[in-house]
Amino acid sequence: MSASQPGKLQPLTAGEMPLVSRAPGQPTTIVEVGKVRFGAEQVVIIGGPCAVEDAEQISGIAAEVARAGGAMLRGGAWKPRTSPYAFQGLGEEGLALLAAARHTSGLPFVTEVMDPRDVAIVAETADMLQIGSRSVQNFPLLREVGASGKPVLLKRGMMTTVAEWLNAAEYVLAAGGRDLVFCERGIRTFEPSMRNTLDVGSVAVLRERTHLPVIVDPSHAAGSRRFVAPLAQAAVAAGADGLLIETHLDPERALSDAGQSLTPAEFQSLTDTCRAIARAIGRDV
Amino acid sequence: MSASQPGKLQPLTAGEMPLVSRAPGQPTTIVEVGKVRFGAEQVVIIGGPCAVEDAEQISGIAAEVARAGGAMLRGGAWKPRTSPYAFQGLGEEGLALLAAARHTSGLPFVTEVMDPRDVAIVAETADMLQIGSRSVQNFPLLREVGASGKPVLLKRGMMTTVAEWLNAAEYVLAAGGRDLVFCERGIRTFEPSMRNTLDVGSVAVLRERTHLPVIVDPSHAAGSRRFVAPLAQAAVAAGADGLLIETHLDPERALSDAGQSLTPAEFQSLTDTCRAIARAIGRDV
Amino acid sequence: MSASQPGKLQPLTAGEMPLVSRAPGQPTTIVEVGKVRFGAEQVVIIGGPCAVEDAEQISGIAAEVARAGGAMLRGGAWKPRTSPYAFQGLGEEGLALLAAARHTSGLPFVTEVMDPRDVAIVAETADMLQIGSRSVQNFPLLREVGASGKPVLLKRGMMTTVAEWLNAAEYVLAAGGRDLVFCERGIRTFEPSMRNTLDVGSVAVLRERTHLPVIVDPSHAAGSRRFVAPLAQAAVAAGADGLLIETHLDPERALSDAGQSLTPAEFQSLTDTCRAIARAIGRDV
Amino acid sequence: MSASQPGKLQPLTAGEMPLVSRAPGQPTTIVEVGKVRFGAEQVVIIGGPCAVEDAEQISGIAAEVARAGGAMLRGGAWKPRTSPYAFQGLGEEGLALLAAARHTSGLPFVTEVMDPRDVAIVAETADMLQIGSRSVQNFPLLREVGASGKPVLLKRGMMTTVAEWLNAAEYVLAAGGRDLVFCERGIRTFEPSMRNTLDVGSVAVLRERTHLPVIVDPSHAAGSRRFVAPLAQAAVAAGADGLLIETHLDPERALSDAGQSLTPAEFQSLTDTCRAIARAIGRDV
Repeated sequence: MSASQPGKLQPLTAGEMPLVSRAPGQPTTIVEVGKVRFGAEQVVIIGGPCAVEDAEQISGIAAEVARAGGAMLRGGAWKPRTSPYAFQGLGEEGLALLAAARHTSGLPFVTEVMDPRDVAIVAETADMLQIGSRSVQNFPLLREVGASGKPVLLKRGMMTTVAEWLNAAEYVLAAGGRDLVFCERGIRTFEPSMRNTLDVGSVAVLRERTHLPVIVDPSHAAGSRRFVAPLAQAAVAAGADGLLIETHLDPERALSDAGQSLTPAEFQSLTDTCRAIARAIGRDV
Repeated sequence: MSASQPGKLQPLTAGEMPLVSRAPGQPTTIVEVGKVRFGAEQVVIIGGPCAVEDAEQISGIAAEVARAGGAMLRGGAWKPRTSPYAFQGLGEEGLALLAAARHTSGLPFVTEVMDPRDVAIVAETADMLQIGSRSVQNFPLLREVGASGKPVLLKRGMMTTVAEWLNAAEYVLAAGGRDLVFCERGIRTFEPSMRNTLDVGSVAVLRERTHLPVIVDPSHAAGSRRFVAPLAQAAVAAGADGLLIETHLDPERALSDAGQSLTPAEFQSLTDTCRAIARAIGRDV
Repeated sequence: MSASQPGKLQPLTAGEMPLVSRAPGQPTTIVEVGKVRFGAEQVVIIGGPCAVEDAEQISGIAAEVARAGGAMLRGGAWKPRTSPYAFQGLGEEGLALLAAARHTSGLPFVTEVMDPRDVAIVAETADMLQIGSRSVQNFPLLREVGASGKPVLLKRGMMTTVAEWLNAAEYVLAAGGRDLVFCERGIRTFEPSMRNTLDVGSVAVLRERTHLPVIVDPSHAAGSRRFVAPLAQAAVAAGADGLLIETHLDPERALSDAGQSLTPAEFQSLTDTCRAIARAIGRDV
Repeated sequence: MSASQPGKLQPLTAGEMPLVSRAPGQPTTIVEVGKVRFGAEQVVIIGGPCAVEDAEQISGIAAEVARAGGAMLRGGAWKPRTSPYAFQGLGEEGLALLAAARHTSGLPFVTEVMDPRDVAIVAETADMLQIGSRSVQNFPLLREVGASGKPVLLKRGMMTTVAEWLNAAEYVLAAGGRDLVFCERGIRTFEPSMRNTLDVGSVAVLRERTHLPVIVDPSHAAGSRRFVAPLAQAAVAAGADGLLIETHLDPERALSDAGQSLTPAEFQSLTDTCRAIARAIGRDV
């Protein structure tokens, strides 16, 4: 039998999203990853490098993230890269290094899975599975990740409408997933001054259309360290339930996304400002 | 002689923007319109209807804007409309009604001018001249407005890059203008869930590239009342020097932009939240 | 009275376009400019430089365009430029040089007008008035050009939907214009490999929605000489009623758009290939 | 070991595309699929339904495609659908029906594969493997398809730049693939009058940058039957090496893409017109 056999899905009309849509009066669903709670009063800040490079790097960053008030660690073990000749990640070895950093820092971690054949092995170790931008309409992967039962972080594609993004989440939930968090990360437009254009309004649109939490990744949208903080501040003010921030001990030497990673000091400063904004709208960090 | 004769511009290289660019270390220029100061600690909130409809409407709204802490009044007398059969504004009569509302409310006002032949008459009455989105590359108009010496509010076009927008401002200043404020209002993208996509990042990009203030119009980007507040909050958190908010005493009966105008109570609430956010980042409303 | 007073327009619903829309069964309107007929069997090829530079240049190009089978001459006297410090055109002097080139070559000419105050003077000399991309929603200009009664070439804006473009034409016709030709010239998208993305499909969409002719400008879309011919060929095959091609005797020395102007030999070759394609679909050049 | 282990790729700089790029003077590579030759003088027309529905449907269409001069059959067995509740294709059963239709019509067929775990089974039966728009940056899938050694039809993503698309092809070739054909199918822009905007210029850009053939799918760009023919004609005139056309015996009853499928008579007429255009530029159908 084919691996991507859709199975016994209910005969609903395409376009309906019974599992993802917010019913009138329905509260935001709290998605728990260990002690971390997405969708509650607390704005969740996730920090970490684009790619896991070695034990010292990832453990060092994890310690800094914890110290600055970050609640969770991120780091890529499998990296989707435009060119086949770019660094593709450490794979399973990266996963082991993330687990070690979790042990020393006490922070749960999220990491991307790109291949349906890797879902089992990643789900065994990671606390939360990330679906990256380029995979948002990789339907076999969405089903496999949903069936794993692990919490999912679903990034928006560079080219994905909000409606398509909600439908992608519906795939995950229809396959058995329950705990899903959306992550806005900028869309492709004609404007070249940042890498992508952060669609901060999507936070408000999702708030209305789904009961699931939404966080924002300002780092990939900015593509440049000096624009990360204002985008992060805007996201928190617009009502985001969390932030995904690229940080590195030595950004200039990062193997990928060097230009947009924050130093520990910049990460600390961003966290402090975002806490003040969160409190201004009745939340906290 | 042709009316749009460019005149004796300096022989600079195209692409250079000596008047608009921020020199290293140069502080933000404060643009004054009466007692209103754009670019200072205070975030300036401008409120008012899309179009001036009658004396009662504009004076009533002006009073509400002033009561809620708004610093300035907006209202369209000449309206750029996609269709020639849509309401085109009251023209000079609208200008007189705005002047009357200024008198009763104490608020200075900004209004759009679309035609170089109308600049003199508008400049005689208005406190600030608005260049609308569709006119951002109307070069004869930019020159005429610059030559008038009045403060200018330069909206971004729906599909104008930041670089083109800065060059448009350079036209105004090269023609003699001095006091110019940029206004981000959303760009055209593939995403249909709001009317336009607010490019909140442009606030940070402009902050870096120009010494002139920048405000944000969340109403036109949202296209819908219920998304105006989160976009406004994001703008203030990202560092905007002000907001341009469409308000109406009875939005459902507005002759244009009915769906996105706030009621006085919504405007008051937005102002209060934005004040709290402004204070969280060391500013005020 | 204000110069842009809309006047006594019929009380139609915005969105209706009674003058521009194609009624069921209505044939394409033939727009005549001297002996040139847009919308007939013959595909009209217009050639000429971006900007008129001097008498020798424009007369030399006009002769080459006529020799290669071009039916009409183009050339800019007023140039809309992104930067105020770029070459802005020769103005009235350029108009006189175009008239002289018309005399020697026998070709009627089209030239852009940017300012409503220049319409009278341009209409006195030119055979057809061009509304440029940046002016497609310059409503006072559209009205003034319509009132002049001259044939109009209405370029699509970089950011303009087909619906907005049709409404812009409706402004011209509502103000008294009768002879209008649309000109697709590429739209702004995320793709950077050409200057703009030629929306060749708009030819088919316009064919369905309006009775007025449509031509294509592949030069501005391409932004590079080597892509002009394939785009021109595509346009003719899709049913365009004409082409607007930038040509120059010595493209490398052109004062603007150097990179995309064809040499006389390239222009001749493009004309020959387009003639063969036109004949393959029952038309001619 | 992880399934998506990249393996022993050469240590090239990311951005270099040694396998895909056209070297100076290098001729277009002919990609052979049975007797069909992409990149030769003959323009290859592929016809067939969006989705395989049953034996009668696919064999009936195959006969019509062959009769009208089509060289190859298309049909989807696994369908990537935005919603999990839309028809997802017949899977392996669809594959068997395609093989039967190949037998009766004599046409080789191309079909989409979405899941790396399905590549072996599809490669066993199909003549050519299609990578769909949503999979263009599904890197594990690209590698698996490349390793299969089968000819590949690589569709452009809705928001993929030409550079990203070329890099996707480089993944296929770096993994062992040799025979790859690009397929332009429209990009996502702000213009709503067709489903997507056909970027006909990408044919010319690819011609310059790669030695591999490129065909065009006007059906998905148009999204409507009545715009397919003009887009197809434009593609052939721009130099496309082939066309991918959705056809159906009874379009109104198609289970997917009903609105854009041609009837057999429309398909015949399109083929005839495209033959005439191909001959006008020295090719044939």
